[in-house]
Amino acid sequence: MEVLNDILGYKNRKIFQDNDCFSFSLDSIMLANFATIRLRDKLIADLGCGNGVIPLILSLRTDKKIIGVEIQEKLYDMAKRSVDYNGLSDKINIINMNMKDFANSNFFDSFDLITCNPPYFKVNDKNYFNDSYEKMVARHEVEINLADLLVCAKKLLKNNGNFAIVHRPERLMEILLEFRKNSIEPKRIQFVYEKVSKGSTLVLIEGQKNGNEGLKIENPIIMYNEDGTITKDYALLQEEVR
Amino acid sequence: MEVLNDILGYKNRKIFQDNDCFSFSLDSIMLANFATIRLRDKLIADLGCGNGVIPLILSLRTDKKIIGVEIQEKLYDMAKRSVDYNGLSDKINIINMNMKDFANSNFFDSFDLITCNPPYFKVNDKNYFNDSYEKMVARHEVEINLADLLVCAKKLLKNNGNFAIVHRPERLMEILLEFRKNSIEPKRIQFVYEKVSKGSTLVLIEGQKNGNEGLKIENPIIMYNEDGTITKDYALLQEEVR
Repeated sequence: MEVLNDILGYKNRKIFQDNDCFSFSLDSIMLANFATIRLRDKLIADLGCGNGVIPLILSLRTDKKIIGVEIQEKLYDMAKRSVDYNGLSDKINIINMNMKDFANSNFFDSFDLITCNPPYFKVNDKNYFNDSYEKMVARHEVEINLADLLVCAKKLLKNNGNFAIVHRPERLMEILLEFRKNSIEPKRIQFVYEKVSKGSTLVLIEGQKNGNEGLKIENPIIMYNEDGTITKDYALLQEEVR
Repeated sequence: MEVLNDILGYKNRKIFQDNDCFSFSLDSIMLANFATIRLRDKLIADLGCGNGVIPLILSLRTDKKIIGVEIQEKLYDMAKRSVDYNGLSDKINIINMNMKDFANSNFFDSFDLITCNPPYFKVNDKNYFNDSYEKMVARHEVEINLADLLVCAKKLLKNNGNFAIVHRPERLMEILLEFRKNSIEPKRIQFVYEKVSKGSTLVLIEGQKNGNEGLKIENPIIMYNEDGTITKDYALLQEEVR
């Protein structure tokens, strides 16, 4: 059932969601906070924007134009209505298109920053058939895989433009190699840990098209204290745009 | 001046050190704790063993034979005397040899585990000339660089043998690519952070020769609390062999 929600503690941003097909995740919120926005940046894209959560949060950090690209018409429609509801239709433009087609359109070499919360799982993953079609496309590499995503990013990015994604750490090697292969040099990585005593469950990676070598591993995001209470840093992440 | 020290809180292990030329580092202790020792493992090597701190700690975790290889005669001599002092000459064998020559000797395909705390800095690093010759060789890639080190490891490792190193996170891309290039698949990475609010300053990486893809990012090591006091985990690391 579709509902109109707050985006956690983010002031002035409401979003349409439907738990049956798509709800925004904390992963997207982390990515929207993680991505570097430079003063000189003019045009931003979010590939596979779902119901538009990343563009909606990015618009709190910048006044520049943001394009959200979403293949699924139902999610595109929700994203568009959320943009309108928040009075942001002059800043955010949602496009109903396959991102591969978008990358081959007239946006070649156009973006200063591209964000993407891609599907994490290969299509042979065991949970493939457990999801609704909408969730399947969001979670599994049905419509786009990692290699194709990087090819799209390379085409769309300006020289020295940034590409920021969120993904699973177990695929880090593959991610870094695909970045390199497409001349997007990994520059910043941030690992998310549920607790200090546990392995990382999520990774944020930003690369720069034709960037120089030199990688920074950013401070860790620890979600919960050992006693199960939420950490200050993680609570803050859900409430503020830094 | 040479002194005989405890290895922090490690019981039953004394070590000869000389602050003018070489003292063991916490990096080595972290590596000696991080490396995987399997029950079936028979032969272990530590390349560039310095004064022998890694073999001395590894010998608390396993009864298997450990070979330490050190190019500098002065450090080789200290390591050998430390091994003798601790009564470990039947378990630990220190060899005074360039590791490239060692890799081309009759130890081809011989080791189940190889550890290495290599020089972190390229020879063009700005601090190159600030050090004594002994420290220069330990810190800068004078005698061995990363690419050559991985070639040595590949030659020396058995099939499915593990290679564990400690290094600087800013060189992570290069490290992972050199591992891959030499068919040593990165399997485990652990990042060390001075504080939760800071970027990582040290990384531990373990790969397996001809291993399958699939990387685990282990729990973070946080050294100090925000108030500057030492964390329990870090204090424990200096006192116990896990």
